[in-house]
Amino acid sequence: MPERAIGIFDSGVGGLTVLKEVARLLPREELLYVGDTARVPYGTKSPETVRRYAHEVAEFLVSQGVKMLVVACNTASAVALESLSGHFCIPVIGVIAPGARRAATLSHGRRIGVIGTEGTVKSGAYAREIQACDPAIEVFSAPCPLFVPLAEEGWAEHRIATLAAEEYLAPLLTHRIDTLVLGCTHYPLFKNTLHALLGTSVQLVDSAEETAKAVVARLHDVGANITGRGRTRFFVTDVPDRFTRVGSAFLGTRLEGVTQIEL
Amino acid sequence: MPERAIGIFDSGVGGLTVLKEVARLLPREELLYVGDTARVPYGTKSPETVRRYAHEVAEFLVSQGVKMLVVACNTASAVALESLSGHFCIPVIGVIAPGARRAATLSHGRRIGVIGTEGTVKSGAYAREIQACDPAIEVFSAPCPLFVPLAEEGWAEHRIATLAAEEYLAPLLTHRIDTLVLGCTHYPLFKNTLHALLGTSVQLVDSAEETAKAVVARLHDVGANITGRGRTRFFVTDVPDRFTRVGSAFLGTRLEGVTQIEL
Repeated sequence: MPERAIGIFDSGVGGLTVLKEVARLLPREELLYVGDTARVPYGTKSPETVRRYAHEVAEFLVSQGVKMLVVACNTASAVALESLSGHFCIPVIGVIAPGARRAATLSHGRRIGVIGTEGTVKSGAYAREIQACDPAIEVFSAPCPLFVPLAEEGWAEHRIATLAAEEYLAPLLTHRIDTLVLGCTHYPLFKNTLHALLGTSVQLVDSAEETAKAVVARLHDVGANITGRGRTRFFVTDVPDRFTRVGSAFLGTRLEGVTQIEL
Repeated sequence: MPERAIGIFDSGVGGLTVLKEVARLLPREELLYVGDTARVPYGTKSPETVRRYAHEVAEFLVSQGVKMLVVACNTASAVALESLSGHFCIPVIGVIAPGARRAATLSHGRRIGVIGTEGTVKSGAYAREIQACDPAIEVFSAPCPLFVPLAEEGWAEHRIATLAAEEYLAPLLTHRIDTLVLGCTHYPLFKNTLHALLGTSVQLVDSAEETAKAVVARLHDVGANITGRGRTRFFVTDVPDRFTRVGSAFLGTRLEGVTQIEL
């Protein structure tokens, strides 16, 4: 019997930052990745619609026999994780809790900033998870709607990105945060821009890295792959061209073997 | 028998710039507007996917008994107009031909720039329509992917918009264009920013205005509404909140009566 894969999904290319970390920590695991590119983005859509899309993508991955589901999208994790966990019999790991736990551990001043899509910020999911770790922590959030298109344009380190970051982060900085959660899978691409703006007094939390660690921690529940060669297969809901092009820039290596599916 | 309405659709709020012009020129017509907000944007998606979405939206409007279809989205007009026109028995008007004709008339130097989404620019639809008017005209195109999110953020006149416009338009300016087609329904919001950047030597063509004139010109085919009160009804495929908020900013008046539909 072939080893079962880990299923990872996002609305588009953003979740590739999570896939990359999972592949780095678990080089033997087979990975299946779905980007819901016909309906991307999720970040500006309603919880009801995102939940419906997330279930459709998850159904596909489960039909492929995956042993674990990684919701590599902050918006979908924020609004659909509970309903996905209740519906499927395999472990379902989102990106919110790992990032929130890490931020709560790091923040000595107990003042944490969270940036994300409109959907993620509106859900309040990060604040809930962080305060579940320590109710004394104050959480200040800001949506950064321009960051996803800036990242996909390849402009995450452009002067425009710096100006946008200044606008978006100004309210958080007045609250003297000491830790900032990058609450969207596109945002790790802005690390240099944010470091330059925030200096060394604000620590950045990359949910992608933390989520990959959470996947490792849950692996014994479903059995690690000890013979695999770490093959990754990609599925998208629109034609693959744009995903392959933008995704290759995200991963830093050329994406191969992208298959279109209908959901 | 009640007077039949004019159906207008777009992927989201952008087509409201067209609706506004149609309502201004035809204050008695009843208008039905659909924003496909559960699947917005169309501009980064493939022709096949946009064509499928456009047909689903058009089917809904036709089921509501509209007498004319206005494709108030440049991307959908670029890739789906022919197939929509072939499929439905009512007049189907897109935004490309009216804007292209106007640009061809205005350009004395026969050097026209076109800006639009990735999908519109890739389709080459504007160049084809412009050169159908005058094969001697040279057409230079540039996608401006950041303009739609900038407009929806309310930043069309922000310094970031000026910087983005400088980046996107630089290649067109080296070609010494004398006319620029705003080939996306969001782009009329950038008129001030573009005027400041381009000066008076480049004329801007607003497809929304030209399309409204084309609707007026075709009205005798389907019968003008002479007793109506110009009621407009709005339909969206995601929950209405965001459409109502962003759309009200687009129209300059508060949107009322937005109904969610499933396609």
